[in-house]
Amino acid sequence: MSKLPNVTTSIFTVMSKMAAEYNAINLSQGFPNFPVDERLTDILARLAKENVHQYTPMAGYPPLMNKIANLVQSSYNRIINPDLELLVTAGATQGIFTSILALIKTSDEVIILDPSYDSYESPVLLCNAKPVRVPLNDDYTPNWETIEKACSSKTKMIIINNPHNPTGKILTENDFLALEKLLSKYPEIIVLSDEVYEYITFEERHISAHTKEFLLNRCIMISSFGKSFHITGWKIGYVVAPEYLMKEIKKAHQFLVFSVNSISQATISEYLDVVDVNLLGKFYQEKRDYFQKLLQHSRFELKPCEGTYFQVASYATISNEDDIAFCKKLIIDHGVAAIPISTFYSDHKDQRLIRFCFAKDDFTLESAAKKICNI
Amino acid sequence: MSKLPNVTTSIFTVMSKMAAEYNAINLSQGFPNFPVDERLTDILARLAKENVHQYTPMAGYPPLMNKIANLVQSSYNRIINPDLELLVTAGATQGIFTSILALIKTSDEVIILDPSYDSYESPVLLCNAKPVRVPLNDDYTPNWETIEKACSSKTKMIIINNPHNPTGKILTENDFLALEKLLSKYPEIIVLSDEVYEYITFEERHISAHTKEFLLNRCIMISSFGKSFHITGWKIGYVVAPEYLMKEIKKAHQFLVFSVNSISQATISEYLDVVDVNLLGKFYQEKRDYFQKLLQHSRFELKPCEGTYFQVASYATISNEDDIAFCKKLIIDHGVAAIPISTFYSDHKDQRLIRFCFAKDDFTLESAAKKICNI
Ligand SMILES: CSCCC(=O)C(=O)O
Ligand SMILES: CSCCC(=O)C(=O)O
Repeated sequence: MSKLPNVTTSIFTVMSKMAAEYNAINLSQGFPNFPVDERLTDILARLAKENVHQYTPMAGYPPLMNKIANLVQSSYNRIINPDLELLVTAGATQGIFTSILALIKTSDEVIILDPSYDSYESPVLLCNAKPVRVPLNDDYTPNWETIEKACSSKTKMIIINNPHNPTGKILTENDFLALEKLLSKYPEIIVLSDEVYEYITFEERHISAHTKEFLLNRCIMISSFGKSFHITGWKIGYVVAPEYLMKEIKKAHQFLVFSVNSISQATISEYLDVVDVNLLGKFYQEKRDYFQKLLQHSRFELKPCEGTYFQVASYATISNEDDIAFCKKLIIDHGVAAIPISTFYSDHKDQRLIRFCFAKDDFTLESAAKKICNI
Repeated sequence: MSKLPNVTTSIFTVMSKMAAEYNAINLSQGFPNFPVDERLTDILARLAKENVHQYTPMAGYPPLMNKIANLVQSSYNRIINPDLELLVTAGATQGIFTSILALIKTSDEVIILDPSYDSYESPVLLCNAKPVRVPLNDDYTPNWETIEKACSSKTKMIIINNPHNPTGKILTENDFLALEKLLSKYPEIIVLSDEVYEYITFEERHISAHTKEFLLNRCIMISSFGKSFHITGWKIGYVVAPEYLMKEIKKAHQFLVFSVNSISQATISEYLDVVDVNLLGKFYQEKRDYFQKLLQHSRFELKPCEGTYFQVASYATISNEDDIAFCKKLIIDHGVAAIPISTFYSDHKDQRLIRFCFAKDDFTLESAAKKICNI
């Protein structure tokens, strides 16, 4: 018997593969297709010739750890101790997995909002623990009443994803007030905040868990350079957590990977001296606006997008097919790949919604839009 | 309560850190200190400028997977299907962890030989399973009778490490005959064979699990480019397993890391066209011989070393201190760092033995030997 009987090939793998097979424009799996900043690749090419090829210390390459602490401070005015509260991971995925594995025990319950990115549930199941899915409101805001109803003495963790993949929703001050109230009633619950799109927000500013006093001692914050620096393949992320939690996370990390790719860590460390993460929001806002404009005469209805590089679209007026069938037809008949939103729901609820990734160069967005507008 | 209450900072971290603090020559943690092959770093520097910065497919970068299949075939005459039987991992550590996590369930038993490298026990504990430690013979050969006595219907896996860290011992044809006999009685048991030092053997040739017909359908083979290409920091390893096991391992991998560093995978893929892994044994044999010669007039008694880049040495005639205390004194008073062998034993049995890593340039070996000979 499989320990993960319900896991099949990830939708991201399926759609990217199918896009390649049918030579479709791939707006499914989330990754940029434009060149990486030359300053970053210059550093990598130079460091290739330097002495950065052996194990870094377990928790991360020390210069990078200091730079991350500076980044967190300059972004959120939060001071962290890199030696005690920081861990560099093989991507955000490994950070999420390791945190859950280190802290969640048999029969614990973990609250996961619905829809959600697919990386939260399986780690919980592998801990013999119980994922408790709580539906978001129809506008994708969290329903704090329902969340509170789902809490019990068994609840060990609430996972939030802000900005939210796939809906692009970001949490508001009121959400954090509600969360604070809820947590005050449940002193045992910790929060895992997946903020890999933290720098990719638009009209409204992202509110990070880093900025909330009431969370500092009970929140695990996950981030990723893959999203922020357009290098999803490098698989370098990080975890910030209070010392008592980080101690346990590091124990698991030691046996999960021991340490993380040295050349990538050294390169990102230097790049952090020259890059300005605050430009990222504007960069992707222009892409979002351009993509939305290109699709304005299409038959799709575009949903609001406050952050991330994903655009959710309804095809309800176009077809009655379920979203998986529709996405397959979109690839085969129209040459564009997208992700069916039903795969983010625990019950695979189909709402005639699909997700496009707009982290693409203008030519790609234009070519895709032409095809989409022809439907 | 911690899920890993007995885990403390790894001995490799402790000793490397202490070596740095006291400016000692670091022969503790296993990593080379000489420059990496220029052909490898040339490829890396060139690829930095190419389009290798986004997610590779989940199981690995396809060209690399084909090259690994070729490597396994040319080394061991074994034909594997890279699509179904191969997974590229963030180092051998992640390969070991993921395999155990995917396949071992609550209350299963896993046989781990004693002494052993420290990466096997914690993953088993995190599965709520039971590590069953079986002592090696005094000459570090496996005692197949004791191993068989430890087997029961609960036994799910036997972990072997060949060549063996820390003792440098390699398995013989007779060992494999005994293993075959044992497995014929226990059809449920699978073998995890950690062969990260597969190309680092000396007088005797390494016998890989790959070459044993009776293992092909029930063995998980772990290897690492970190050891073979002197790039321990890159954290690129791989797992070969029969399809029915690999299917489960991939499910866990998908949520553990999703995919592995793209630039390192692309670089190793090209490097495999030009490198000859068969030169590695000779390269390290010369280092072993040189190191042994340098120490011949020391007061340490050197143990046989058939493979790996580790030399075990007894200080029984020098001091009565336990090996941890001795290693600390070695750093502080004599400026050389080593690893106490007791840390590889589940009961921390002290035998006045320490481990030196000889994967160092000649100058380092000479400087260390001078200090060691002065004791
Ligand atoms: C790790 S593959 C999925 C990439 C991603 O973040 C997404 O498409 O949502
Ligand atoms: C991952 S740190 C330990 C390195 C190593 O393989 C050893 O020193 O035994």
